[in-house]
Amino acid sequence: MTDTWKRYRELLCSVPSLGLTLDPSRMRFGAGFFDETARDMDRAYTAMEDLEKGAIANPDEKRMVGHYWLRDPARAPSPEIRSQIERALEQIRSFSMGVHEGRIRPPNAPRFTQVLVIGIGGSALGPLFVADALGDRARDRMRIHFIDNTDPDGIDRVLSGLSGKLPETLAIVTSKSGGTPETRNGMIHAAAAYRAAGLQFPAHAVAITMEGSRMDELARSEGWLERFPMFDWVGGRTSELSGVGLLPAALQGIDIEGLLAGAKACDEATRSRDTRSNPAAVLALVWLHATGGKGEKDMVVLPYKDRLVLFSKYLQQLVMESLGKRLDLQGRRVDQGIAVYGNKGSTDQHAYVQQLRDGVNNFFVTFIRVLESGGAAIEIDPGITAGDYLHGFLLGTREALYGNDRESVTITVPRVDARVVGALIALFERAVGFYATLVGINAYHQPGVEAGKKAAAEVLDLELRVLKALGASPRTAEDLASAAGAADSMELVYLLLEHLAANGRAKMALKKDPAETTFTRP
Amino acid sequence: MTDTWKRYRELLCSVPSLGLTLDPSRMRFGAGFFDETARDMDRAYTAMEDLEKGAIANPDEKRMVGHYWLRDPARAPSPEIRSQIERALEQIRSFSMGVHEGRIRPPNAPRFTQVLVIGIGGSALGPLFVADALGDRARDRMRIHFIDNTDPDGIDRVLSGLSGKLPETLAIVTSKSGGTPETRNGMIHAAAAYRAAGLQFPAHAVAITMEGSRMDELARSEGWLERFPMFDWVGGRTSELSGVGLLPAALQGIDIEGLLAGAKACDEATRSRDTRSNPAAVLALVWLHATGGKGEKDMVVLPYKDRLVLFSKYLQQLVMESLGKRLDLQGRRVDQGIAVYGNKGSTDQHAYVQQLRDGVNNFFVTFIRVLESGGAAIEIDPGITAGDYLHGFLLGTREALYGNDRESVTITVPRVDARVVGALIALFERAVGFYATLVGINAYHQPGVEAGKKAAAEVLDLELRVLKALGASPRTAEDLASAAGAADSMELVYLLLEHLAANGRAKMALKKDPAETTFTRP
Repeated sequence: MTDTWKRYRELLCSVPSLGLTLDPSRMRFGAGFFDETARDMDRAYTAMEDLEKGAIANPDEKRMVGHYWLRDPARAPSPEIRSQIERALEQIRSFSMGVHEGRIRPPNAPRFTQVLVIGIGGSALGPLFVADALGDRARDRMRIHFIDNTDPDGIDRVLSGLSGKLPETLAIVTSKSGGTPETRNGMIHAAAAYRAAGLQFPAHAVAITMEGSRMDELARSEGWLERFPMFDWVGGRTSELSGVGLLPAALQGIDIEGLLAGAKACDEATRSRDTRSNPAAVLALVWLHATGGKGEKDMVVLPYKDRLVLFSKYLQQLVMESLGKRLDLQGRRVDQGIAVYGNKGSTDQHAYVQQLRDGVNNFFVTFIRVLESGGAAIEIDPGITAGDYLHGFLLGTREALYGNDRESVTITVPRVDARVVGALIALFERAVGFYATLVGINAYHQPGVEAGKKAAAEVLDLELRVLKALGASPRTAEDLASAAGAADSMELVYLLLEHLAANGRAKMALKKDPAETTFTRP
Repeated sequence: MTDTWKRYRELLCSVPSLGLTLDPSRMRFGAGFFDETARDMDRAYTAMEDLEKGAIANPDEKRMVGHYWLRDPARAPSPEIRSQIERALEQIRSFSMGVHEGRIRPPNAPRFTQVLVIGIGGSALGPLFVADALGDRARDRMRIHFIDNTDPDGIDRVLSGLSGKLPETLAIVTSKSGGTPETRNGMIHAAAAYRAAGLQFPAHAVAITMEGSRMDELARSEGWLERFPMFDWVGGRTSELSGVGLLPAALQGIDIEGLLAGAKACDEATRSRDTRSNPAAVLALVWLHATGGKGEKDMVVLPYKDRLVLFSKYLQQLVMESLGKRLDLQGRRVDQGIAVYGNKGSTDQHAYVQQLRDGVNNFFVTFIRVLESGGAAIEIDPGITAGDYLHGFLLGTREALYGNDRESVTITVPRVDARVVGALIALFERAVGFYATLVGINAYHQPGVEAGKKAAAEVLDLELRVLKALGASPRTAEDLASAAGAADSMELVYLLLEHLAANGRAKMALKKDPAETTFTRP
């Protein structure tokens, strides 16, 4: 055990300006690890410096990657970009102040009290995480709600939770491209609900989107309350510290200056080329060590703090969408990535930590340790609080995993406040960037997501053709597939018909063999 | 594509009584797979039959495993057990009816309107899943809240959400053993909040626990409103259809008869020894195929329906705690398990499906397809609804994954109602049981969880000794470790001191080298 103390002291990586430490001592890399990886890390530092200076860091999409400028506009590569960022921030501050003071208000109520965020992926995961991590019902200026899918039942549930409150609900529609179908569908359902309540949607809506996008044009032509810019050089999964995250947070009453300051401080600490003192670099190297640079192990994220329960969902996107790539920068097939999952400790100790301790060794844990317990300081046992238990469970589990040859890295923060949340986001953003260079991939595009949208559009097109082919006389899926010009897609046609039948748009006479099941127009 | 249709029809596994199908056609097992595994499946059926008849199916703990009897008490191995189950169900029905009718009421309010569930692991994940899947604010009889951790800040957030409503809040404290520390801590905090509001906790509390447990004794001696039994032969992770899940659900107004009937119908369908028509058997074999019987791939659970978003969290426990085992039944080291993660589609398509499509091929997907769209039937495009998009995204993603050699299994259900939720729970319970036999492990114990509790207790004991050793003159962690009789645990002592300092119970003079940092009594 004396060895663990020595190794802890040698490897501990501190950011005094944030009170944040990263402890990689329970990863079993060898003494020469930092030396062996020094040249690769040098490349990663250089790539990151180029990126921060405005290089085309996303070559496939020929885009700059500028999320680091958002919290330090003076670093923007041109005065125009700097002033874009500063104007956008000012717009957010003044709009949210106007809403809080009741100067910006809905037509039929004295003020906005509810915020409805409509967005998906990068337009929802960050806002959801921050709203939960930093919100407090008693203190929040406004209540926040989310529509983050195209499930009509799920949308109804959110809207019915706003029942009676729509007159005082501000809707934020967020889509960088302005063409995300889920977001558009959510918006259409929300607008219908406003109309059904006798309200004008445009008087309750703001858009966050790129200038000139379809969403932007819609908002302009309908006269929405306000339009906030998204920038070409900010990707969805790194947009939490752009308007995407800052506008809902500011409206909720969250300290957005703290978020930005924390991220900026973390960026400063993680620009250092002194790897051992750079927590983002150490984190990227920890991933390299744990996964063999090939995603061989899953990243289990275990914050011991309820407020951080959504951090792993947020990191799922940041890490997996950035690193999960088929091709490397040279166009070679690599099938890269690291799977991420987790919820919170000690809750998860009563769920899957059994497997982590005893079962298949296909993961490493990222513990997030929050020093201040918070809450009521009640003695549970003499001298012991519920917070001591929480902390004790973390240390006990870390120890037990290590004893059974399971690796972990521990990030310690003083508390969960805006500065710390900003810093955690920035820490993982930069670690992802470093790691992408280490394994030679583009972290900033998402070709599979685009392909997914296309695949779904084809399915919907086929659905329309199948609907058209339905008639009064019973036909099998095979018949209908032929009629719809999709004789090679019988299974797909059958599945579409099953869905249509369940929703009253086809009648189905079910047989044991799906090939004999017939369908008619209802 | 004609091949996929043929394979779909050949392999589709239907449960007509439930309208449920399981489609394994996008798993690439060969034509002889069912024959090759027939003998192993025979053993699995026999083991399951023995279990259902009351064999000691959990040999380490020398326990019967009886969750299947809960929904079909006539199958209980003795009249005593049958009547225990029936009495417990009757108690739940009559208690919740009494609460709804206001006959069972709090001292200082006309009726209970809020339910606060205090529990963790198996005592929270099922109730959370079912409350979210089947609850509806507009229809629910009572509003439900959860304390599922020992985070004092998290507990405070839940209790402050109940601010002003404690007089009409019924607290359910659930702990099988009656000694789960997190649950006890949550209860102590909740009781303090009731006291601070001038209320008597016992007049607002019920316990769900084994007869004679510490919790049972406490509830009896303090005169709580009611005590509900847990049975020795029901494990936490399979307790959703015992009082643990049924009591909160019944209070919320969820159709518990439907839950039980759905589970019973699924049990009946999955008792068949005709493997190809038994969805639990096919599911277990799919896992065997995908993971090589060694956890080589992760199980990604992707329900395309907001109401099922917590199902993957529920399955994380059911699958990972059951299968994540170090030793097989012969005592050989096997390090078994299957990692489970997922949230919901199409939301996750904008998070990590990029990696699933393009990245590291270390998973298989379990799609859950819900036929009825629900919600408002608004046309988004001519002839197309938001629900068509949702369904289209599922089919598109399933197709794209298959095209890139990623496997998936699809479970289709007509809708998300109590019967279907009961059936889904039963389906996975039995698949886990079958799979455990296939790989030769005990699915019904959790030695690692017990070890975790012990490790934490040792940490807390050390914390008390360190607190005692703190004095007026500054001492290093090494000094204090020696004084606390833990010279071999310097790192642990340092981490404890850091935590104590952050919470005002030690004063810390931070140095660059943790070994030089000193601590005093505050």
